[in-house]
Amino acid sequence: MSSTGTHEPPGVTLPAWLAGPETVRGLSQDALAGLAERIRQFLIDKVCSTGGHLGPNLGVIELTLALHRVFDSPRDVLLFDTGHQAYVHKILTGRQDDFDTLRQSGGLSGYPSRAESGHDVIENSHASTSLSYADGLAKAFAVRQEHDRRVVAIVGDGALTGGMCWEALNNIGGAPDRPVIIVLNDNGRSYSPTVGGVSAHLGELAGLAGSPRTHLRSYTYDTDRSLFESLGLSYLGPFDGHDTLAMERALRRAAALRHPVVVHMVTTKGRGYQPAEDDEEDCLHTVSVVDPQTGRPRSASKPTWTSVFGHEIGEIGAERDDVVCITAAMPHPTGLTTFAARFPDRVFDVGIAEQHAVTSAAGLATGGLHPVVALYSTFLSRAFDQVLMDVALHRLPVTFVLDRAGVTGPDGPSHHGMWDSSILPVVPGLRLAAPRDPSRLRELLREAIDVTDGPTVLRYPKATAGADIAAVYRVGECDILRESTEGEVMLVAVGPLAEPCLSAADELAGDGVPVTVVDPRWIAPVSPDLVSLARDHRLVLAVEDTTATGALGARLGQALTASGSSTRAATFALPPRFLPHASRNQILQAHGLDAAGIATTVLKRLGREWQTTIEPTEEVPT
Amino acid sequence: MSSTGTHEPPGVTLPAWLAGPETVRGLSQDALAGLAERIRQFLIDKVCSTGGHLGPNLGVIELTLALHRVFDSPRDVLLFDTGHQAYVHKILTGRQDDFDTLRQSGGLSGYPSRAESGHDVIENSHASTSLSYADGLAKAFAVRQEHDRRVVAIVGDGALTGGMCWEALNNIGGAPDRPVIIVLNDNGRSYSPTVGGVSAHLGELAGLAGSPRTHLRSYTYDTDRSLFESLGLSYLGPFDGHDTLAMERALRRAAALRHPVVVHMVTTKGRGYQPAEDDEEDCLHTVSVVDPQTGRPRSASKPTWTSVFGHEIGEIGAERDDVVCITAAMPHPTGLTTFAARFPDRVFDVGIAEQHAVTSAAGLATGGLHPVVALYSTFLSRAFDQVLMDVALHRLPVTFVLDRAGVTGPDGPSHHGMWDSSILPVVPGLRLAAPRDPSRLRELLREAIDVTDGPTVLRYPKATAGADIAAVYRVGECDILRESTEGEVMLVAVGPLAEPCLSAADELAGDGVPVTVVDPRWIAPVSPDLVSLARDHRLVLAVEDTTATGALGARLGQALTASGSSTRAATFALPPRFLPHASRNQILQAHGLDAAGIATTVLKRLGREWQTTIEPTEEVPT
Repeated sequence: MSSTGTHEPPGVTLPAWLAGPETVRGLSQDALAGLAERIRQFLIDKVCSTGGHLGPNLGVIELTLALHRVFDSPRDVLLFDTGHQAYVHKILTGRQDDFDTLRQSGGLSGYPSRAESGHDVIENSHASTSLSYADGLAKAFAVRQEHDRRVVAIVGDGALTGGMCWEALNNIGGAPDRPVIIVLNDNGRSYSPTVGGVSAHLGELAGLAGSPRTHLRSYTYDTDRSLFESLGLSYLGPFDGHDTLAMERALRRAAALRHPVVVHMVTTKGRGYQPAEDDEEDCLHTVSVVDPQTGRPRSASKPTWTSVFGHEIGEIGAERDDVVCITAAMPHPTGLTTFAARFPDRVFDVGIAEQHAVTSAAGLATGGLHPVVALYSTFLSRAFDQVLMDVALHRLPVTFVLDRAGVTGPDGPSHHGMWDSSILPVVPGLRLAAPRDPSRLRELLREAIDVTDGPTVLRYPKATAGADIAAVYRVGECDILRESTEGEVMLVAVGPLAEPCLSAADELAGDGVPVTVVDPRWIAPVSPDLVSLARDHRLVLAVEDTTATGALGARLGQALTASGSSTRAATFALPPRFLPHASRNQILQAHGLDAAGIATTVLKRLGREWQTTIEPTEEVPT
Repeated sequence: MSSTGTHEPPGVTLPAWLAGPETVRGLSQDALAGLAERIRQFLIDKVCSTGGHLGPNLGVIELTLALHRVFDSPRDVLLFDTGHQAYVHKILTGRQDDFDTLRQSGGLSGYPSRAESGHDVIENSHASTSLSYADGLAKAFAVRQEHDRRVVAIVGDGALTGGMCWEALNNIGGAPDRPVIIVLNDNGRSYSPTVGGVSAHLGELAGLAGSPRTHLRSYTYDTDRSLFESLGLSYLGPFDGHDTLAMERALRRAAALRHPVVVHMVTTKGRGYQPAEDDEEDCLHTVSVVDPQTGRPRSASKPTWTSVFGHEIGEIGAERDDVVCITAAMPHPTGLTTFAARFPDRVFDVGIAEQHAVTSAAGLATGGLHPVVALYSTFLSRAFDQVLMDVALHRLPVTFVLDRAGVTGPDGPSHHGMWDSSILPVVPGLRLAAPRDPSRLRELLREAIDVTDGPTVLRYPKATAGADIAAVYRVGECDILRESTEGEVMLVAVGPLAEPCLSAADELAGDGVPVTVVDPRWIAPVSPDLVSLARDHRLVLAVEDTTATGALGARLGQALTASGSSTRAATFALPPRFLPHASRNQILQAHGLDAAGIATTVLKRLGREWQTTIEPTEEVPT
């Protein structure tokens, strides 16, 4: 079972008989080992050609086989926490033929999807939810007296650092008559190595002081009590997460207990694929389209918003020794690698724990420092209350940098960062900025870190950063990017949508429609300068990479109404619903947020004065 | 140290020399015991006459004395989790003379307040934040090399059920060189007895299988490992939380460790006041103005929104066996007592764990039941992401009942439920209702529980429920409460603000201004019916007990703009800032949300057509 580092050429296929979980239940352990190896080669082949989550799935091949051989999904419920490790589950539940379309528009989702299969239950990719779902399902089966249905949550050691897991463990451990089977997939890592006391404890349980946990005890750990037992659950393990026979025995024993139980499986992220096992950063957690021989992208990458931030925060760190950075288990994807290398004592990885990231930042600010919390936009939703109460109520200077804001792309509905611009403006005293280009990112980051009396937020997408866009001039906080003196149409371009707005304005000028384009830079609160600029126009359209509800257009409209202006501001943003996976550009285009779509919308609005059908909660082009 | 049940007559005073923490440091243990008893009588006297948190503060008199004798606040930082147990801390830091104004407008806050004292750090009353603040402060002191400052978090066993504590313990336990002193104030209770595996474990540590934990071991627990030790922290205890000498020794020992440590103090909520110790429900957690002899209110109470809900959900429970209820440690204050008594197998107290409350509800719904999650409005902010992702993305039928919505009153800025109406409409598919009277609460609750494809929310304040208000007729979902055919002014009355809106309309009619009053019942999403009604008027004012940003007025304005109407909708709501404590009526009146204020605002708006000054983020009467 050592790693091989080799694989077959593209075009690896799986046996046609592999059509449902029942088809693997009769296999001998030898046949199973062969199948596991074939699935491994299939995954390397497919994921390297489509992009997707590779390391996590290579680590759970044997575990997923064991789960489907012991439990009877969907009557028994398998709940995959976070969900990006469900590829093998997809293969075993009849979806092997769809892997060529993985994460493509209209194709196989990179996460469980109830539309795809009755074997999928949790579609949300945010970590640490599965134990809470499991507790609820176990309660439901108890109330409905469906006592023979088993509830199985598969959770990583990384996800276990999230507070929801604690809340769930407290409830699960407190109800000895309501069995829940928690399968702990312990690979010692989140994206990066898992941090904190929990991980150290798991390492100790596995018989080692730290990670990786390769040398396992053969029997149940019983010399000292595990924290799970302290909380009232049973504990079985650790087991070798690549030994299907041992795992099957453990899972059957866990089910027979009829008591809440943690079954500790020790797995290797990236198992059996040398480039992944060799990758110290994140074991090839996610890959774009890569060369399967090396696990490296085929072409060099251009500067991204992330890399521009990463460079600038490093510079700021050198200038100001009061600036510290916080990441929630993602130092690299959020661009903190350089800062961490230069100032290792001033960067804190708190685990997959956004609530703690925010409130420990409040503590750091109380202690006289200026924390910069780098998160994905979608994950800040986890800590709205902490931003509101622990930071803003206390008027503490904390800067949040939200990567993956707006349309994110192939990770689908729970990764799109399309909510921050609507909920954060509700927080009193919070200032929210959206840079349009690399220079503005650097400039706004510095402006944010100079604020001393409350939270500041920057948002930008997962994308290349493009070229700088010069302003004609600046009015207060607003940059005038293109000016028309005829007062007809003003586009309020939010962040990187400045570029398509300017292209649309060019196009419209060719059609004889003069358009002013303004970048407000700070999009919340609405600045008096922006209101003044808007008042001079007949049609004001805020073009935004976010859900329409509560977006800048709505808030600007509210401000215009309050100011007595007859100008109307409309929101031109994403429809207020969950959007499926596709590439960022495909999604923006589909909703008219490209140059052609923006120009078309302006012409339509002008042509018919204002649309007359009522679509109160959707503002998409019709 | 047994309970006395007696107290002095009103007018108890404290010694004038008690003017700061240094004044208690030289006292003998005998003098200290006398002072503790005097503080106890003082608290009973004062809190029974002003209302406030009684039980929690009676339980921490000796503990607070010990803390201030051992640590040097504010150089050492004392962080009171949740904050309602900081009355003794206020007394010891020079605020004894302000207790007659406790929780009154302009008077002493019921929580720590940085404006009141440099000894106060956390103002947020939401539970489970102190360990995260402590971790951040300890990091700041390490970065700044202020190694002699101690960080002390005082956290209850109830707050420990919240996931933030886990996230913080993981970080604190993972950093052995960064000492944090966690003082666990274990009284076995939140409002109600603390639930789950954590509480059972604490009971076990205290040498008992369960609560109350009255018989303590004399020495450090060392026969089996505590969960805190599993996480890398040291553990000292349990100690008698009413023995100052024992606690002082323990705290000095904890400080000398220079290692993260939990010091386990076992206290009795309501200690020394017989009515509180006898109160099984919540040990007189909070009292309104009560008779100090009995701990009971002096006058009979009228039906509240809470009691109307409590009765109706009990009726629904009898009709539908698929309806289950969830509370986050507050079965009584949220009105679930009746339901719990009638259907004990269908009610789940999950602890102070709103995230788990929501996602376990998603699990219950996945299992075929209809969960009703009863929370305070302000605490649902803790679980925005779970409502969005775990419930709405999965289109699961979960009903949220938000008590204490809008202005709450004497509990101050972190208890006002003034954010839900702005952030919840961002959630796709979520429907939000605000009942105006008891009949509408019953009706909307039933409509909500009949929804099968997504989340529903009801919101109502902490107040008496008033009389039913008949509609003239209903259009779609909207109730026309008063009709004017002249098309000038329409008030959109949200929830209980229907009553002052109707009074204002009466007043305005007397002034010759005809006003239509509409109750939309469902305030999100904006219904086409409401848009149609609004289009026929010149001035539409949504009158709302919530922050102005993103409120119904803004969303209705957005919908009117999208519909091509020339009608403008304005928001008449609370200013978008944190509001201090005062009574609900005082706060509403101060912001013009009473009948006179509403009438005045309408006249002003009409008189000058529209206001011409720009106040983009504040829509209060000027």
